[in-house]
Amino acid sequence: MPDTEGHPDVAEMTLQAVLGALADPLRRKVIRDLVNDQPWAERTCVSFELGVSKSTLTHHFRVLRESGLVYQVNRGNSRKVTLRRHDIESRFPGLLALIAEEA
Amino acid sequence: MPDTEGHPDVAEMTLQAVLGALADPLRRKVIRDLVNDQPWAERTCVSFELGVSKSTLTHHFRVLRESGLVYQVNRGNSRKVTLRRHDIESRFPGLLALIAEEA
Repeated sequence: MPDTEGHPDVAEMTLQAVLGALADPLRRKVIRDLVNDQPWAERTCVSFELGVSKSTLTHHFRVLRESGLVYQVNRGNSRKVTLRRHDIESRFPGLLALIAEEA
Repeated sequence: MPDTEGHPDVAEMTLQAVLGALADPLRRKVIRDLVNDQPWAERTCVSFELGVSKSTLTHHFRVLRESGLVYQVNRGNSRKVTLRRHDIESRFPGLLALIAEEA
């Protein structure tokens, strides 16, 4: 079962949810940025500069979180986003490479 | 430029269109069936037994065709669907394997 924040376990990740999340260009930009960042990078939502309202931003990160692509954790008074790189790679090998290479 | 049937050239295929096409479970079933079929398989649209109306079926195959995932050709009085296996593999390596393995 997903945890209280909506993060699915690696075995609960579905191609349906992951492809649904990645079908959106802004969400794909977030994942691409994270793939090309340091493996241990922790970013704030606003750091991706998506140019959308706060509620839209919240929506996009909820979709990413609930699909299993990212992990969102509280760090003091801010929330940080990390890529579930190992989980994604073990469940859907090669997927991140495809996203990373998009022009 | 896509041909008169809307088939993009391999260089025109985009991850956006391909992921948009694959985000739908019925369209993903079509691709999964084709991946697991003989490499030279030519199928009719109805053979995938999607259980939808003719207009919905036409829509789904248009999305698949325009994304570059399938090629639709006239064969006498019927239309046949083939997977653009080599094109997809050269443009998005590993993608078909992910689709094929979905339970």
